[in-house]
Amino acid sequence: MTIPAGAGRFVTFEGGEGTGKSTQVALLARRLREAGQQVVTTREPGGAPEAEAIRELLVTGAADRWDAEAEALLHFAARRMHLVRTVWPALQAGQWVLCDRFVDSTMAYQGIAGRLGTDKVAALAAWTMGDFLPGLTLVLDLAPDLGLARAADRQAARGAASDRYERMGADYHERVAAAFRRIAAENPDRCRLVPAGGAPEAVADRIWDLVAARFPLPC
Amino acid sequence: MTIPAGAGRFVTFEGGEGTGKSTQVALLARRLREAGQQVVTTREPGGAPEAEAIRELLVTGAADRWDAEAEALLHFAARRMHLVRTVWPALQAGQWVLCDRFVDSTMAYQGIAGRLGTDKVAALAAWTMGDFLPGLTLVLDLAPDLGLARAADRQAARGAASDRYERMGADYHERVAAAFRRIAAENPDRCRLVPAGGAPEAVADRIWDLVAARFPLPC
Repeated sequence: MTIPAGAGRFVTFEGGEGTGKSTQVALLARRLREAGQQVVTTREPGGAPEAEAIRELLVTGAADRWDAEAEALLHFAARRMHLVRTVWPALQAGQWVLCDRFVDSTMAYQGIAGRLGTDKVAALAAWTMGDFLPGLTLVLDLAPDLGLARAADRQAARGAASDRYERMGADYHERVAAAFRRIAAENPDRCRLVPAGGAPEAVADRIWDLVAARFPLPC
Repeated sequence: MTIPAGAGRFVTFEGGEGTGKSTQVALLARRLREAGQQVVTTREPGGAPEAEAIRELLVTGAADRWDAEAEALLHFAARRMHLVRTVWPALQAGQWVLCDRFVDSTMAYQGIAGRLGTDKVAALAAWTMGDFLPGLTLVLDLAPDLGLARAADRQAARGAASDRYERMGADYHERVAAAFRRIAAENPDRCRLVPAGGAPEAVADRIWDLVAARFPLPC
């Protein structure tokens, strides 16, 4: 599998816990399909069977199970399999790929909010995928206390326990939110910051406008 | 956990399948303990609970389950946890660490015999562990057909199936054996090539002499 020359219609959704990423992926996919487009929706870590097996290692266990370096290596191993098995084949077939989290999450959580540093994350990204990047990244922005409350409600509705990242503490999640805003500001060509506090359909309308501006549909 | 300044008495055993690495680790550990030394024996991939979980992903499944990049990232994730949890604490406590496979196996299997290339493996090694290296590496050398026959006998005696690496084909294993010889030749200060075709006790005598020359015991 070779890396596609252009990122194509690869749209990533980034932001902290409970900012509505998976909801917005689903809403954008529906609208694109209604417009006659072929769409693959996926997520990280995971998005391919091999990557989901690695995801299990990442989201279970104690908060300090992995040190920062090992955690980043696992994320990029999962990302590599996700690209090879799912993302690149779909892009090469001319499909849209909408992805809940991608490399900016590693940069925000491990590179900026964690102790790894941006240079080490950038080096590992280059090692894993060359200069491949999304064609558009939507950074959903919400105060972390609101996002974590949403995530807790969602877990309770499922009868599920909170996962390893959600248990990491308020200060960490404040740093994550700030990290995502910094990434959006430093990558203005690729990233759009999307206020995520309103009703899901209102956020979806804003995202639709951003997507249409970046990738005009033929119709 | 910081990387120890010197590699200390960290001895790695390298070589293809069935070259007798685990036997020689056990024999050297016994002799060192008889000489009053404190010794930790370990292996890769694995050697710490977190690393063993990654090992399960690496040794099971189809030969093409992981692409070369993902496989290397998983090996280094496991290695990082092995270093942090097992190797570095033992070295800092003044113990010997004898390890069945280490970074030279990744270089031989993925970097040289596989398609990844030596530069990519070296870059990932530097990313993961800086310039940390073993104090002594014993490269056990045996014709691959003999080694694979030994490995098959061992699996049959256990009633176990062959693992993912053993199923990779004779040509691949010839390239692995050549790769280990090349690594030994290119790293003469750190590596010693040990002919591994004789009786285990004879090989162990040769190894004992090499270890004693590199790390003279106080007695």
